[in-house]
Amino acid sequence: MPELRKDPIVGRWVIIATERTKRPHDFGSRPEPRRGLCPFCPGQEGMTPPELYALRPGDGPGARANAPGWRLRAFPNKFPALRVEGELDKAGDGIYDRMNGVGAHEVIVETPEHNKRFSDLSEADIAGVLGAYRHRMQDLSRDGRLKYVMIFKNHGSAAGASLDHPHSQLIALPVVPRVVSEEMKGARKYWRLKERCVFCDIVRQELKERVRLVYENASFIVCEPYAPKFPFETWILPRVHRARFEHTSNEDFTLLANALKVAATKLNVALDDPPYNFILHTTPFGEGDPDHYHWHVEIMPSLMQVAGFEWGSGFYINPTPPEEAAKFLREIDI
Amino acid sequence: MPELRKDPIVGRWVIIATERTKRPHDFGSRPEPRRGLCPFCPGQEGMTPPELYALRPGDGPGARANAPGWRLRAFPNKFPALRVEGELDKAGDGIYDRMNGVGAHEVIVETPEHNKRFSDLSEADIAGVLGAYRHRMQDLSRDGRLKYVMIFKNHGSAAGASLDHPHSQLIALPVVPRVVSEEMKGARKYWRLKERCVFCDIVRQELKERVRLVYENASFIVCEPYAPKFPFETWILPRVHRARFEHTSNEDFTLLANALKVAATKLNVALDDPPYNFILHTTPFGEGDPDHYHWHVEIMPSLMQVAGFEWGSGFYINPTPPEEAAKFLREIDI
Repeated sequence: MPELRKDPIVGRWVIIATERTKRPHDFGSRPEPRRGLCPFCPGQEGMTPPELYALRPGDGPGARANAPGWRLRAFPNKFPALRVEGELDKAGDGIYDRMNGVGAHEVIVETPEHNKRFSDLSEADIAGVLGAYRHRMQDLSRDGRLKYVMIFKNHGSAAGASLDHPHSQLIALPVVPRVVSEEMKGARKYWRLKERCVFCDIVRQELKERVRLVYENASFIVCEPYAPKFPFETWILPRVHRARFEHTSNEDFTLLANALKVAATKLNVALDDPPYNFILHTTPFGEGDPDHYHWHVEIMPSLMQVAGFEWGSGFYINPTPPEEAAKFLREIDI
Repeated sequence: MPELRKDPIVGRWVIIATERTKRPHDFGSRPEPRRGLCPFCPGQEGMTPPELYALRPGDGPGARANAPGWRLRAFPNKFPALRVEGELDKAGDGIYDRMNGVGAHEVIVETPEHNKRFSDLSEADIAGVLGAYRHRMQDLSRDGRLKYVMIFKNHGSAAGASLDHPHSQLIALPVVPRVVSEEMKGARKYWRLKERCVFCDIVRQELKERVRLVYENASFIVCEPYAPKFPFETWILPRVHRARFEHTSNEDFTLLANALKVAATKLNVALDDPPYNFILHTTPFGEGDPDHYHWHVEIMPSLMQVAGFEWGSGFYINPTPPEEAAKFLREIDI
C-alpha cells in the first residue's frame, strides 16, 4: 500500500511508494523508448485493467466493453500511485503524520489513433474527452473518502509522459492538495476584501486590456497570466463565474473544446510541438458552489529547467513577458 | 530593468525578464555544451564583473584583485536576474501588483580547478565556501531594500547548471520568498502549539529512531526527511537550535564542511554523480533570532521529472522511501 506522509513544517503531503520501490540503479539513464505493442491502442484492451468508461459512438447498447471500436476509453492506471481499496488509517509516528495511500489513479485514452496529438483531435473528440473528465469526476465524488480529483495531461517525455499515445490522467486524493487549497484560500481572502471573485476580475481586466489575451469565444477566454511561472504559460477561463468544472453544460464543452484546440494548436505552431502539462483546477468536493472560486485550465509548456533557486524560493524567473508571448500567439493564423 | 510581478490569487512573485527576452525560437533544442574558455577559470578574471570577495591564502595584503592566485572568488552575475541599482517603485496595474526587479545576483566560484566536483574539495576548501556565503550574506544584510538572501548550487546540466566549473549562486530578494515564508509560518504555528522548535523536534526524533539518519558529527546531522519530495532528498541540520546561518562559528563551519562532504560523496557514489540542487534555508533579514526557526541545508538530486500532477497539486510521488535511501547511504563506506 502506498503511504501518504505529511511534512511537519509546511504541511505538504507526499505519496511514498512502498511497492515497486526505486533503488539507486533504477535512476540511471533515461528509459529507452518503449518498443512493441502500445497498451493504449485498439486491440490491446487486454493489456489494461477493465474500462470504467468509454465512447463507442457507432455501437448499439450491446457493444462489448474492453474490445475495439471505441473513440475514447478510461480505465484504472495499471501502476497506480494510490489504491482504491482500504481505509485511510490516519496515524501519528512521533511528531510525524501518515495515512494509507487511498485514492484513485485513472487513465483516459483520448483517441484510438496512436500518432495523433491532442491538437489534431476534432473539437467533437475533445468535447468527448471533457465529457469523460466530468463523468469520472462525478462518479468519484460519491466516494466519501475522496476530497479532490486532479485531472492533468503530460504531453511529451520532457513533460513526464511515459507513453506517446494521447492520454490524460486523473488522480483522486483523500486530502485537498496544497496548490488547490492555497488557491482557494487566496481567492477567499480576495472575496472578503472586495466581494468579487478574483478570477472574474482577471477575466474583466484581460478582456479590457487585451495585451495578454490570445483568443476568446462566447464562453471562454485564452490568455497569458499576468505573473506566469513559465514562458508561454496559458490559461483558459470561463467568461462568467463558474465554480465547478463538472457542472459545465455540453454546449459549453463544445466551446471549451474550441478554446483548447486553438490554444494547443497555437502553442504547437509557436514552439514546434513543445512538451507541456495541462492541469484542470476546480473546486474540491464538499465545498459547494463557492462565489469566490472559478475553475480554469492551466497549460504550461516545459521549456525551462526548474533549478535550485525555484525550489528554494518558490520564485520563478521567466524570460518571456506574457505580453510578448500573447502577441506572438495572437498573430499565429490557424 | 527586470520586473517583479505578483500572482493575484496565491500571492506568488515571479521575476519577469524584460531585457534579453526569450522568443519562441530561443527555446529549441538544448544549448550545445559551451566551448572555448571558461569564464570561471584562473586567467579569465576579465570575463567576469569585478570581484566582491576572494580567498588568496598565500598572498600578502598587496595581492591583486581580479588576477589569478585565488582559491575562491565571488562576483556579480554577468547576466543577473535582478539588478542592484534603483528603487522598488511598487505600483498597481489594475488588480495586479508589480515592482522593479531590485536585488542582487552573485556567483561564488568554489575552486580554481575546473574539473573538480564539490565533493572533491577538501573540507578546508568547503569551509572557505561557507565563509564566503556568510560574508556575502552579512554584506547584503546592510541593504535595507533586501529581505532575504537565497544561496543555492545547481550541479549538472539536468539540475540547471549552465557552466561546469564548480560554483554556487546567491540571489538577494526584496521580498521574502514564498517557500521561506511558508516554512517560517509553519514553524511559528508549531511553536505556538508545542513551545518547541519543529526542527529541534525533527533532530531529536531522527537521532532517536536512526532509520533516516545518514551521518552525524558533533554539530550536525545528515538525514533523509520523513516526507521527502524526491528520492534521496537529504537534509543537513545543526544538532542544537540555530536560527541564522550567518551566525555560524568558524569551528562549526569545519564540521558543516565535513557533513556536506560526506553527504555529497555518498550521493555521488550511490547515484553515480547525479545532478542535484543544494539550497540553504535560513531566517530572513529583520526577523531577529527566532526560537521557532532553525537554518538547514536541503540537497535534492534531480532524478525525477516534475509533471502535471506535481505542478497542479503540490503533491509529490516519491518512489524511494527515505528509510531505504538512508540505509543505502549509511552503508556506503567512504
